This record gives sequence, structure tokens and C-alpha cells, in this order.
Amino acid sequence: MSKRLKNGITAPKGFTAAGIHSGIKPGKQLDLALVVSEHPGPIAGVFTKNALPAAAVSLGRRHLKKKIGQAIIVNSGNANAFTGTEGLKHANTTAELVATQLGIPTHSVFVSSTGVIGVPLPIQPFKKGIPILISQLKKTGASAAAQAIMTTDTRPKSIAIQHTIAGKVVTVGGMAKGSGMIHPNMATMLAYLTTDVVIEPRILQKMLHTVVDQTFNCISVDGDSSTNDTVLCLANGQAGNRAIRSSGSAHKQFQQLLHEACHYLAMEICRDGEGATKVIEIQVNEAPSHQAAKCIAQTLATSLLVKTAIFGADPNWGRIICALGRSGYSLHSDRIVISFNEVMIVENGKGLGPIVERKIKKIMQRPSFTISVSLGLGKGTARQWTTDLTYDYVKINASYRS
Amino acid sequence: MSKRLKNGITAPKGFTAAGIHSGIKPGKQLDLALVVSEHPGPIAGVFTKNALPAAAVSLGRRHLKKKIGQAIIVNSGNANAFTGTEGLKHANTTAELVATQLGIPTHSVFVSSTGVIGVPLPIQPFKKGIPILISQLKKTGASAAAQAIMTTDTRPKSIAIQHTIAGKVVTVGGMAKGSGMIHPNMATMLAYLTTDVVIEPRILQKMLHTVVDQTFNCISVDGDSSTNDTVLCLANGQAGNRAIRSSGSAHKQFQQLLHEACHYLAMEICRDGEGATKVIEIQVNEAPSHQAAKCIAQTLATSLLVKTAIFGADPNWGRIICALGRSGYSLHSDRIVISFNEVMIVENGKGLGPIVERKIKKIMQRPSFTISVSLGLGKGTARQWTTDLTYDYVKINASYRS
Repeated sequence: MSKRLKNGITAPKGFTAAGIHSGIKPGKQLDLALVVSEHPGPIAGVFTKNALPAAAVSLGRRHLKKKIGQAIIVNSGNANAFTGTEGLKHANTTAELVATQLGIPTHSVFVSSTGVIGVPLPIQPFKKGIPILISQLKKTGASAAAQAIMTTDTRPKSIAIQHTIAGKVVTVGGMAKGSGMIHPNMATMLAYLTTDVVIEPRILQKMLHTVVDQTFNCISVDGDSSTNDTVLCLANGQAGNRAIRSSGSAHKQFQQLLHEACHYLAMEICRDGEGATKVIEIQVNEAPSHQAAKCIAQTLATSLLVKTAIFGADPNWGRIICALGRSGYSLHSDRIVISFNEVMIVENGKGLGPIVERKIKKIMQRPSFTISVSLGLGKGTARQWTTDLTYDYVKINASYRS
Repeated sequence: MSKRLKNGITAPKGFTAAGIHSGIKPGKQLDLALVVSEHPGPIAGVFTKNALPAAAVSLGRRHLKKKIGQAIIVNSGNANAFTGTEGLKHANTTAELVATQLGIPTHSVFVSSTGVIGVPLPIQPFKKGIPILISQLKKTGASAAAQAIMTTDTRPKSIAIQHTIAGKVVTVGGMAKGSGMIHPNMATMLAYLTTDVVIEPRILQKMLHTVVDQTFNCISVDGDSSTNDTVLCLANGQAGNRAIRSSGSAHKQFQQLLHEACHYLAMEICRDGEGATKVIEIQVNEAPSHQAAKCIAQTLATSLLVKTAIFGADPNWGRIICALGRSGYSLHSDRIVISFNEVMIVENGKGLGPIVERKIKKIMQRPSFTISVSLGLGKGTARQWTTDLTYDYVKINASYRS
């Protein structure tokens, strides 16, 4: 069992952070965050698959080729996406400013941006803000940093956990933002993990991919993927463990620790989903293949009719049937089993009637529950998390910019 | 130019209709409709692609093999979907009751159901209702029939148009229902076309497919396709024209007439979309292929962020960029052009700024407008119609059954 700590992204040895108001957002809202490691170390990254990625994503992909990171700078209030060569130049300048002032190579600085798409990013706030950020870097800066990366989020999202791996205490810290545009392949979602573990870049990169696929890529708030999504994991090697190898128990233990941190942050994003009042786990079992299970789980997770029924706590399982049917796979209706938590509502293709539906309605009134669907076709399984679709989702998104 | 008539589905020669309350729905709401032609004739049909189709869809596919139709019976209030062998038996019985009492073959009777999924369909209302329906068949029955097929629709949807084709007056009548679960491949959408044209079944079927692909399959209210969707077109051959051949000007003229009727009904469905306040045409031009254009148009039409921005009249074109980017095709950002009606807001990948955005905001306040996107990649084009996503959509769907 891992141990929960308080500090967030700065919990692992050798990390400091800061968050300030630089002038990108109006008022005094924090809008610029910096996370720095004393020592450079392996960095792994997973980026959006959107074909029109933001400037920071293009830059991040380039810097990631060197596989070494030491600083992460994130602004909120402007996505610097669809901003042409000027946007790319400003992302570059941001990295250079941080690198020069910290005395580290530019390629070890990773930049992220989040906010409105298509608005030119002013560079002045960075020129003024970066020296201030650096002067404020401290061990207790995690909470300001987590606040500074928020957009429509209603609260900061942080975690820090610790576990003894092969005799050494290893810590993972993390922060994330995102509450709308949430959909597999990481929609307007930013997440940063720090750790003091000793690990090779290649192994860290592979592990991060695996973990992201099981966590951040399994959540859906509204089916939209963004231009800016980024997950980075920086490992500064200060825990003194024997380097994690590509398999074995230490590998397994560290992957579990990383999974726990990513799963927690992904659930935090769902719980803070725009307008969401509920977080639902969708399990698909006995699908013809893993791919089919995943696709069917996503069809359920993004069905507006399923999501509004969840909001209304209406045990209208016909909508689940309907979504199953349009997911693109051949199904046998007489093998389908549907349960809410442990209560079965459809057994071998037959609805179990109003008495059971009343039980289901009670389950659906809870803030979280599981819908599981078994198809009787094979061994494919998948899990996915989604939220309900509410009046507030519409309200938030009909007037985001106004 | 076609001439608009009043009568709806009974406008072509030789058709009568009726609509009654049979007891499937509560209160006195009309819930059973019958349309009958004096003479049997070619019938064409297009059904849902949902892998778990309703009983009536399975039966309809079977009857369609004989290619001859004379009567269409439709109930609302119960979808008779996911109701097992009992459901199939009841759909069969319904067709048999109509056939026996009209003295026509069972395979010339087509059955449809719409309403809640997964609830056993009672057969008693049909046993009692069918004789009454038949006794009430009349030339002026179109409006009762159009009302009896409604579910969450707020108004009946009918059309009748007429055109002189090769010296003979040919009439097309139609009715449709559907306001939620609307998405390509025909979501909880039922549409019936009647005509007195003389045409071979094979030609009618091909023509109906073409027209449905350009009309009903291009509208999206909420991205969900249903188990019950059906479009039928019954041609009783009473117009006395020389039979429509597989090409030529009469073929073209009749296809235009059918297209006009289907397009009107499809737009009526959008205008009556659950909670919708606006209908938007999405045009995608210069895509790498027609398939790509269609897929990109659908991605835009189903993006919750685009649909809520339309509701809020927020000219947040970044959401269009974001949806384009996740549609699965490689794009060149510096070739993208986006216009609202005739006003360009993105030119060669650059936003044209706040003055133009204010113009766009005014356009977005209208009940209907066009968003066109040009990609500069090829010759693919596609059109799609969608609605805004509103508080009322959530309200209607969070409590449909309660």
C-alpha cells in the first residue's frame, strides 16, 4: 500500500514549484506555473492526437526527443493554439527565458498552454513573470502551481504518494487540470507527474504510455479532444533506488504507484467535469475483443441519451441497448446482461421489470456507481469513466468566453 | 417548381389514412396510425443500421423482399425493441390483423413502432384498435395519422407536393416523426412517403437510398441512432405516367420531387429537435475525399462544444478548429477557411479578429445559418444539418420516462 502525502507535485525529493498572476488572465487570478527539479532527469510525455496541435505541443514533441527534462512551465487563460508561426515563436521564447534564467538547456524546459483557442498569446506576461516565478520557487509551491493551471476547473487537482521499492522510498507527485473537452486522447487535459525514482527514459516512456491508456485515456466528459492535451512525467533520480528495469517486481511496483497517481488525477478531472454531478464507471465484459470492448465502452460513455438518463436517475436501460446496437459490432441480444453496481436489470436479453428498476433508480441517485455490460461473445474487457450531462454543462459551455 | 398541397400523406391518388387512441399511450393521446392504398404497389424501405433492431424492423426487412406494399401501421408509445420472440410475434400479429381485415396479403403490410425500448408491447390495443382504424380510413385522415406517430415531437410533420412529370401530374405525400436520438443512419426517426407515380420497385429502392443518404442521413440532433428507424416509400401507380426508367429526365424530376419531400421532413425533424432553438447547415468543402468531408461534417455536427457555442451564439471558432483536428484526417492549418453564412472568420488559418466576430455573433443569433469550412486539400464536399444543444435538451432527456 502506498502512503498518501500532502505536498502534491513537489513531494518527491529535489522538486520546487511556484504559481503567480502574470497578466494573461484578467484580475488577479493565478495563470502561470513553474515546476523545477534541482537535477535534470528522464522525462516521458504523451500528447494529444489532435491533427491541429497547439504550439506548446509541437515544441514539447521536439524537446522530448532529447529525453531529458528539468523544468515545466504552464500558462492558463490562452491555449496558444491555431496561432501560426507567431505562436510557435512565443512558445520557444518561453522555454528560452526559463532556460537562460535557470542556467539549463532549452530542450530540458517543457511548455504547456491551456485556455481559449485562436487568440494570439502575449509574450510580455512571460517576460515579466518568469523572473518572479523563479524567485518564488519553493517546496511548498505545489498548491499555487496547481491553481495556476486551472481554466474552468472549480478546484485544483493534486496528489502525492510514496512507496518503498526495493528498500528505497520512492515518491510520485502530480497535478492536473481539465474539466471540459475531456475525451480519450486527452481533451484539454494537462497532467504533470514528478518522481525521484531512478529509471531509464525509454522504460519511463513506455510505462507512461501504458498508464495513460488505462487512466487519462479512459475518461470522457463531453467527447471533445483538445489541441493542447499533455501528460509529462519527470524523474530526477534522487530516490537512490537501483534503476528500475524493464520488468520485475520493482518495475511492477513503480508502475502501480504511477497508475495510482494518474488514476486519482483522472477521477478528480471527472468529479470536476463541467456541470457533472456524478461519475460513472462503465465496464464492458465478454466482448469479441479488447478493441471491441473499448469501442463499445466509449459509445456508452459518450451517448447523450445515456448521460442525460444518468443525470435524471432514470433506469431507462433501453438507451444502453440502443447505444450498444449502434457501436458497430454484431451482438446477440439474448446474451446481453446489464447491471448497475451488483444489481442485474437485463439478464440474457430480458429486462427484469419495474421492481428491479426501482432498486436501480436508487443506485443511480448516488454520486458514483458502475454500469456493467456483459455481451457473451468473447474475452474482451474494458473500463471507462464518464459523467452525467446536466443543465450546468450547457450553461458553462454556451457562455465560456462571454 | 413543385406545387405544395395540403393533404400530407393522403395527397397522392388512392391513399387514405386514420389515427386513433388505442390505449398504448396514457390518456387520450393518438397512438396508432394506418395508411392504406386502394391498390398494391412497389414499396421501398431503408432501415436502421443498429445491431439490435426492433421487432418491426426485422419484420419490415422480411416483408420488403416481396417488394409490394399496400398498408403501413405505426404505433407510438412503445418501441417494441429488445422484447425478444414475444415482440416479434406481436409485430407479426399486427400485420396479420391488418391484412385479414383489409383482405390483402400479410407481406404487403408494414409495421413500425416508436417509444420506450425494452417494455413488452401489449397486443390488446391492436386487436381493439385495428377495426376502428379501418372504419375511419379517409382522404382527410393524414393529419390524425401524423399526430398518432409522435413521441417527444411537439408537432406533427407532414408534406404533400405535386409536379407534372412527362405530361402527368405526380404527387408525393409524406409524414415523419422524430426529435431525439436523431443521428445519421436514422435515429428514432420514422418517415413515410406515398406517391401515385408508376415506377419499378428496383428503381424506387435505389432512388430512396440515394435520397435518404442526402436528407435523413445528414441530420444530427444528439448523435444517437435508434433501434427503430425506418423510411418507407409506397408507390401505387395511379398517376398514369409512363413508368419511370432508371435514368432520363422523368427519373431526375421524380427524384427531385422525392428529395424535396424528404429534405422538408428532415428539416422539420431538426426544427423540432429536442430542446433545439436553431438549425445549422454545416458545409465541408475541399476535403481530401467525399468520405472525409462527410466524416468531418459529422464530427462538427456532433461536437457538444460546437453545439453549446451555437446555443450561446458564441463565435468561438476555436471549437470548430478543435473538432476538425480530432476528426481523424491530416489537415493544413494555413489552408483552413471558416465562414458563417457569407462572412469569413478564419482565412488561410488566421482568425480575422473581434470586429468580424461581432458580425458572426449576430448571424449566430438567427434561428438558422450555415457554417462552412474549406480545407484546401481536395474536391470532397458534404453537407450536414445539426441543432444547438440547450438546457431543454437535458431537461427533456433527463426525465423522458418519469
